[in-house]
Amino acid sequence: MKLTILGCHSATPRINTHPTSQVLEIKNRTFLIDCGEGTQVQLRRNKVKFSRIKHIFISHLHGDHYFGLIGLISTFRLLTREADLHIYAPKGLKSLVTMQMKLSDSWTNYKLIFHELTSKVSELIYEDECTEVYTIPLDHRVYTNGFLFKEKENERRLDINKATDANIDVAYFRKLKQGFDVENEDGVLIKNEEVTYPGPKPLSYAFCSDTAYKEAIVPIIKNVDVIYHESTFLESHQHLASSTKHSTAKQAAKIAQQAHARTLVLGHYSTRYNDLEPFRVEAKEVFNGHIELAESNAVFSF
Amino acid sequence: MKLTILGCHSATPRINTHPTSQVLEIKNRTFLIDCGEGTQVQLRRNKVKFSRIKHIFISHLHGDHYFGLIGLISTFRLLTREADLHIYAPKGLKSLVTMQMKLSDSWTNYKLIFHELTSKVSELIYEDECTEVYTIPLDHRVYTNGFLFKEKENERRLDINKATDANIDVAYFRKLKQGFDVENEDGVLIKNEEVTYPGPKPLSYAFCSDTAYKEAIVPIIKNVDVIYHESTFLESHQHLASSTKHSTAKQAAKIAQQAHARTLVLGHYSTRYNDLEPFRVEAKEVFNGHIELAESNAVFSF
Repeated sequence: MKLTILGCHSATPRINTHPTSQVLEIKNRTFLIDCGEGTQVQLRRNKVKFSRIKHIFISHLHGDHYFGLIGLISTFRLLTREADLHIYAPKGLKSLVTMQMKLSDSWTNYKLIFHELTSKVSELIYEDECTEVYTIPLDHRVYTNGFLFKEKENERRLDINKATDANIDVAYFRKLKQGFDVENEDGVLIKNEEVTYPGPKPLSYAFCSDTAYKEAIVPIIKNVDVIYHESTFLESHQHLASSTKHSTAKQAAKIAQQAHARTLVLGHYSTRYNDLEPFRVEAKEVFNGHIELAESNAVFSF
Repeated sequence: MKLTILGCHSATPRINTHPTSQVLEIKNRTFLIDCGEGTQVQLRRNKVKFSRIKHIFISHLHGDHYFGLIGLISTFRLLTREADLHIYAPKGLKSLVTMQMKLSDSWTNYKLIFHELTSKVSELIYEDECTEVYTIPLDHRVYTNGFLFKEKENERRLDINKATDANIDVAYFRKLKQGFDVENEDGVLIKNEEVTYPGPKPLSYAFCSDTAYKEAIVPIIKNVDVIYHESTFLESHQHLASSTKHSTAKQAAKIAQQAHARTLVLGHYSTRYNDLEPFRVEAKEVFNGHIELAESNAVFSF
């Protein structure tokens, strides 16, 4: 699992700080999460192949999370994309994008499929043979979802020596990896766990931005491996966090701690802070796991 | 008159090439012309004070000319702007911006005034005591205007010695600069041109992008000092210029030549060209005046 931070600052794009966007790669799939202004340039800077992006998840319709989307859609057209593009976003975005296309008389030559979100409870919005994505309903000034990306249970690993010793035909190895018991060449039923062991633990990633402190999300993200939780402010600006429905680093850490996350990635910093280390310090007070500070163009492998 | 190029490439924003946007400063006024994605970052890079921008002119509703506008409007709000902002743009932009604000539940705390353009003939769309702006109807795939910025006639310059010799009271000097004849202390009428001489010639600037070759604009921009004319292609891609309703450098030069412009600024290059010198070479074949190649962050003083 590889996470590339294209931007992780709140509010307006500046020369060296970019609004929210990140690329999550799981099992050879490339998911784009949020798409602030300048995202397509950041994709180029980070050498992410445009053609690999087939699914875009938009948390909410504040500009710093989606103003770069229409430009990206338009660039895909110029690059003569043909593959379908799926966009998971709050209701409203589809009409907006349609209006923009109408005004410029520029339609996509690929299929643009909107999955408009309205539910206030967590729901499965994407699934394939290896991965699942669930919404995480957040608490912000407008309708907002975080997203939980989960690898599905991995195949069991075969102990070749034991399987051979047990006189199992290789034709059954596939079924063994899938967890089935099988009969050996002598017609004896071999229990799966006698010749296999569990595959690698499936990984999960929770993107939670923007949001006020919301304990109700903990059950949804319980035991997540990595959580990106917004921390727009430090404790000294707790009043601003409350009034704007954002979180402090400490609040982000509290959520991560309750969810038993292994790693907490902090981000969505207010541009008022030049030094980001205090975010780590404040989070460390309440979270025992590993802490990372997101920054533009950072790449995390988990 | 000072022209700052924020971006002058066509199509998509890339790491070092930006879509169309430029800042024109005339007589202490700051006009923003077009606003592709990334314009606000380019404004910062070029140290243009956001608060000085009160009038934004949008040529047409293709993304590379306006996708940065909504972000800029939103940033103005975050910077707690209070001054009115006037936007001159094709009809449709107002509904779009309104929809985006509605979706994010974010309204401006300053007055946003749209001047929606629909006319197919040149019209005066802005006027103050020193400057005027006229539309230049262009020929592109969607409704498009260029803009002609004109200084008004400058005040006449007083020849202090002659005026004193003519026994004119200083109280009349203001009227003399405004071009009136005045009576001297002896009650004799003094002809204005006896004691004044013409002020500096008023300057003018024509922004013409995007457009196919269109001779009909020549009378509108006749004798313009500086013309920025798009040159998306070189002659070798003339067929592409035709089919996409863009111009070649040579066609841009033909317009400049017929308009008797002093200076031609070329821009809106297709990103297929790495070397821009051939644009100058091709334009030089037909235009006798001065030629400049626009590039990001270039500043021209005229």
